[in-house]
Parts: sequence; C-alpha cells; structure tokens
Amino acid sequence: MAHALPQRILVAPSGFKESLDAAAVAAAIGAGVRRALPGATVKAVPIADGGEGTAETLASATGGHLVPIRVTGPVGKQVDSHYAMLGGEASGTAVVEMAAAAGLRLVPRDQRDPGATTSYGVGEMIRAAIDSGATKILVGCGDSGTSDGGMGALQALGARILDAQGREVPAGGNHLGRIDRLDLEGLHPAVAEGKIQITMALNQHNVLTGARGVARVFGPQKGATPAQVEEMSAGFEGWASVLRRDALEEAGSTDFATGPGTGASGGLGAGLAAIGAILMPRFEAILDSGLAGIDLDSMLRGADLVITAEGAIDFQTPKGKVPAEVARRASLHGVPVVALAGTLGRGCRDVHDIGIDAIASIMPIPMTLQEAVDDGERLLIEAAERFMRTIILGASMAVARLSPRAAW
Amino acid sequence: MAHALPQRILVAPSGFKESLDAAAVAAAIGAGVRRALPGATVKAVPIADGGEGTAETLASATGGHLVPIRVTGPVGKQVDSHYAMLGGEASGTAVVEMAAAAGLRLVPRDQRDPGATTSYGVGEMIRAAIDSGATKILVGCGDSGTSDGGMGALQALGARILDAQGREVPAGGNHLGRIDRLDLEGLHPAVAEGKIQITMALNQHNVLTGARGVARVFGPQKGATPAQVEEMSAGFEGWASVLRRDALEEAGSTDFATGPGTGASGGLGAGLAAIGAILMPRFEAILDSGLAGIDLDSMLRGADLVITAEGAIDFQTPKGKVPAEVARRASLHGVPVVALAGTLGRGCRDVHDIGIDAIASIMPIPMTLQEAVDDGERLLIEAAERFMRTIILGASMAVARLSPRAAW
Repeated sequence: MAHALPQRILVAPSGFKESLDAAAVAAAIGAGVRRALPGATVKAVPIADGGEGTAETLASATGGHLVPIRVTGPVGKQVDSHYAMLGGEASGTAVVEMAAAAGLRLVPRDQRDPGATTSYGVGEMIRAAIDSGATKILVGCGDSGTSDGGMGALQALGARILDAQGREVPAGGNHLGRIDRLDLEGLHPAVAEGKIQITMALNQHNVLTGARGVARVFGPQKGATPAQVEEMSAGFEGWASVLRRDALEEAGSTDFATGPGTGASGGLGAGLAAIGAILMPRFEAILDSGLAGIDLDSMLRGADLVITAEGAIDFQTPKGKVPAEVARRASLHGVPVVALAGTLGRGCRDVHDIGIDAIASIMPIPMTLQEAVDDGERLLIEAAERFMRTIILGASMAVARLSPRAAW
Repeated sequence: MAHALPQRILVAPSGFKESLDAAAVAAAIGAGVRRALPGATVKAVPIADGGEGTAETLASATGGHLVPIRVTGPVGKQVDSHYAMLGGEASGTAVVEMAAAAGLRLVPRDQRDPGATTSYGVGEMIRAAIDSGATKILVGCGDSGTSDGGMGALQALGARILDAQGREVPAGGNHLGRIDRLDLEGLHPAVAEGKIQITMALNQHNVLTGARGVARVFGPQKGATPAQVEEMSAGFEGWASVLRRDALEEAGSTDFATGPGTGASGGLGAGLAAIGAILMPRFEAILDSGLAGIDLDSMLRGADLVITAEGAIDFQTPKGKVPAEVARRASLHGVPVVALAGTLGRGCRDVHDIGIDAIASIMPIPMTLQEAVDDGERLLIEAAERFMRTIILGASMAVARLSPRAAW
C-alpha cells in the first residue's frame, strides 16, 4: 500500500516568534516527518512575510549570509542589527528588514511616541548594502515602530528635508507639517542614477492618507494620542504633496497619498517610492519576484502534501498570514495543506475555510508559554511526527477499505 | 471518494482522572468526530479498568444507576460512596468498586499506615448490593488504600476472625500475625449458600505472599516502613494458611498464597476467594465475562477505526492501561487504533509498538493542568475533530494519489 502514502512533502512554514526562525521550524518539521515516514522526500522552503525574521529566513533559505551592522534605532539610540545578502540565484539581492532597524520591538514601552521615532536606520542599511555591492534591495515591511513617512530613511540616503526657511526638519511624524520641500541633490548616486532596484514587500492595503490612512489605522497602536493622530494625518497629506512635486523622475505618476502600500511601515512606502522603489504585495515580492530566489509554486507542483506552520493559528490567520498564503497557492495546484501551530487560538477552525485541511498544536502537556518557547524544537519535531503518523494512518485505511467489509 | 473514508468509528476510551468519566470522554470524542465527519456512524463504549470510576462508567454504559451508600472508610471514618446496579442485559449485576470504599484517595496523607486500614466498606457494599437483589457482584480492584488481606470485607459479610484465645482480631495488616482462624458461621446466608456469584476484576500479577507479594510490592507506596513490610509479609503467609484451612468449600483448591490475583487490592483477592469469589484478569472480567453487559469484541468487528483515550499516555500505557487493551483487541480484528490523551508524557511513542497507530494531545495552547481539567470536555471535542480531520485528509490523499503524478 506504500504507493498510496504521501511521498513528496513540502514544508513551508513561517517562523515561531521568539522561539524558532522559519528555517529552524522547517528543519524540525522535516525531522519529525522523516521519523514517521523515513522514505519520504522532504523539501523545505521557509516562508518570510516581510516582518521580523525576514532577513534571517531568506539568508538561510538561499545560502546567503547576514551582515551585522550598527544603525540608528527608532528612538535615536544606536542598535546592533543586520541585513541579509542572499546567495545562490538571488545573489546581488540584499534584504533589509525594516523591523530590524526601526521595529516596534526596538521602541521602549515608555517611549512609544510615533511622532518622535525615525526610520533613519532603514536608510543606513540600504546605503550599506549598496556600498557593499548589492544592486537589488528587498525591503521587508511589517512590525514597524515608526510613522515618519520614510523621512529618516530618505535622510540617511542623502536627501534633505527642509522647512519654509530652508532648515533641516528632523524625522518624525510630529514634524511632517513643517516640511516645505524634499531636496534629493545629495541622494546616494547609485540610487539617483537608477542603478539600484529597490523593491518593498508590503501590505498594499496600507495607504498614507485619508480615513484608512496609516495615522488613523496604526497611530493609536503605536502610542499616538487622538489629537496626535489628527495632526499626523494632516501632516501626511502635506508630505504626499511634497513628494508628488519633488520625487525622482523614476517615481513616475505614483499616487503618494493613496497609492497601494504608501502607508506601509508608517509611510516608509511613500518615502521610498519617491526615490523609485517599487511597492509590491509582500508575498508577491518574496515568492514571485525572483528577488529572493524562492520559487514556491514550482515546488508545489508535484508535491503530495504541504505542511505549513505558524507560532499561533487563530482568527487572524486567514487575514494574510503565511499559512493562508501557502494554502492559497497550494490550492491552485490541488495539493492538500496541513498546518502545525505553537498555539491554536480562538477561531482556529476558520482556517478550514481557506483550504487548510487539518491543523494540530505542538503542545503535548500542560506547560507555560515560556516552557513551550524554550523547548520549541523538540515539541515541533514530536508534533510533526504525530501529525504525519495520523495522516499515514488515514491513507493506509483508505486503501484497506477498498475491499468491502461486514455490516456494523 | 467518500467510500474510502472511515464511516464506522468505535470510541472506546478510559476516563480522564479528576476531569471526565469514561462515558463523558466517549461522548466528547464522538461529538468531535461527528463535527469532522457528519455522516459517520459513531458507537461509544466507555472502558473501565476496575479502578476508580469503574462503577460509574459501567452504570452509564449499561443504562444502570448508582446506589448511594454510606460505608466505613479505610481509616474507620464513615464515607459517602456508591456502588452500581447495572442495566440492560447486565441487570442483576452490581459493581462494587473497591476504591470507592477503601481507596488510597480516602486515606488522609498523614494516616498512610497500611497496617491500620480496613476493607470493611467493601464488604458492606457487597452486602447491601445482595440485600437489594443483586445476584452477581463484580468487584473492581485497583487504586486501593488497604493491605488487610480482605479481613475487613469478610467481617462486614458476617465472618469472624479470631486469635488463639478466641478474641476478634480487628482488620488491618498489622494484626495478620495474630489470626488463628476464620469463622464463617455468621457469613451472609446468600453467600454461604453459593447463591451469589462474586467476580473480581483484578491484576493477576498481584499475589499475596513471597518476593513479589503484595506487602513487598505495594507496602512501601502505601506508606509501610521496611520493618512493617517484613512483618506484614509474614502475616500474609499465616493468613494464607488460615484461609486454606477455613475457606468455604466453594473456594476449592485455591492457592491463597501465590494464586493469580490473591494479592490484588492489598490481599482482598485472597480474602474474597475464601468465600468463593472468582479472581479474573480485570479486562476479561469487564469485557468478556458478560457480567458488565459490554461486548467490545463484537463492536470491533466491522469497525473502520477505534479511537481510545486516557488522561495520560506515557511509558506506563503499554503496561495494561485501557488504550493498550483496546489496541490489543482491535489488532485481533485488524482495526486501526488511534489514541487521544490529556497529556502525552515521557515514552508516549512506545504505544506505536503495541498497535496504536497515531496519538494526539488535547492541549491547544499553553495552559495549566487545572485549566485543562476544568475545560476538559471542550478540549476533547475540539481535539477529536482535529484528529479526525487529519485522518480524513490522509484517506482523501490516498485515493487522489491513485492517479500518477509528475516527477518532483
């Protein structure tokens, strides 16, 4: 009956935040699968979503490396961070994870003033990547702690942002209203000359201005007061006008105010679009653009089963999380999908509606979250083995049942 | 492809200690299975093992009822307890769960002196059951807190246990050495006349005397000191000699010292054997004797899948726990077995060696044991649904894969 067992298993998980990165998750699941089904061919493709862990995941998936770098963090303090230089077919691409330079995690809780934080470190990383030879920059958005419209990143790349008196305006959502013009004369020459392809992996639903603009949607969760939200919202309107007028020619007819993704990462989308960055839906940028050297779709072709995973599977999973994207693509190839989760939260059954056929938690016993995080690898290996054994059982039964049985 | 999905699901779980009895576990699993596979025929057969919960499980499985009764507990204090009068085909059978009258749980921690505890309450229950019309008594052994060789139970049924001076010897392992003879003149007439069939469901490996005798094996865990263990061991030798001489004729040629099961429940096996009780391996007594009205084997015939369960699945499971017994029987019928567990502990993978094809934990998220116990029913329903969906997925895949696919 071996011919009816799944033999070609594609493991395509997200990372488990604070426990294991996506490559480690994929390796653990693969190990568990092989325990249950030693003859299986297991391929691993760790999936990044642009947010935290993206640089590390893509470096590891392509055989690239991380470049350590000290940059200006969101509250102005220097932070030790990294960007990725990808390997293999993706060499020449650097991955700059915005969260690693300006993420919410880098903003101390008592300094959560989105009007004051800067994306300067993102620009520093881009500049460093260019200066060490990268010609393509993939900027991962997500988990940001800034709302400066990309002011800081532009400044780090050599732009000047000036008020009506010609004075430099410091980066930060609080200062948007003072901006009179963007001076790109000092912009990094490779960028100015269009020699660098900057692609942003972002959520296209995030726009810079209006009722669904970034100030109104994300301001409060980044710590903005209601008055500040209104002020920043108006500030972004002005910033969009400035960008429309002063952007590089490469930016073409970009709609900086309400174009898809302009509001991503506190307006970083609009800011970098002004120097020619392409704003792309995050999974398209990571999985389809060829930039990251990953070709999920060709791996899906011919797979018998996809195992995806995420730290938490719950009502939010269908809203664009990695397992949802994996399921969407797998369904186009008619490949069944199962998902392992660190925790199965409220609404986890909703994932059956988006094509995930079965789910399992990795928890074997009552334990604390910290214990689970600390022991994530073992829990994942063992849970993957159990999950796979259960699937195998189903497959074996189906074949056995092809012969008729007595009444019951 | 529907024809290849499992349709006839037998749910045969143990209870989850301190959370759900076996019938409740079976109902919850059945509900989860139906959520995943609405067209399935689900039959439930909660399985008791003779220990705690046996009376309740069998009452519920047969449509019988529990009879509340106040009896003498193991330390002499009255306890509110119950025995079961079974229903359906098993009516006429009473189930006396030894642990409900003389269980270790009824012995306060600061009174754990096995030399002092009495099985008197067990005898009181048997008498009450007979007096209310039972003609067959199934005595479930397991989880006992006594080591009195059944002295107390015999006394409650009218026997006198006398020393060389003709004085009554109080029940308790400490007094075994004083026993000179067993006087069955006052024994309950129905028992004396052989009108009552007493069957004990026990572990046959427990014997009364010798190196593997009950004093040496269980004394220490019931709180006996080393000196007490030796004294009780000698006491049981003497008690076996007294029983050999003074037992009812019905006891025939029983070997009270080392016969299979004589040491069960602190020697209750030997004591009741002296008045004609049949000592039977516990699952044989419960599942095969017909006494409990359960016919697991005929239900296994024709089932597509068996789902068993236990509060904990670990290295101890293969050593005679409910899931092990269910798996053993299912394998004789070629029916695949899966097991759900409240917790999957150390060595849980060993169950694959005894014919359990797949296992899963009910834990969805990090939580405390108490939270899991309190929310057991919901956790079990949801876990059963997930488990079943995973099996169904495997079955669906096997059918789909009957057509060849591209290389990978």
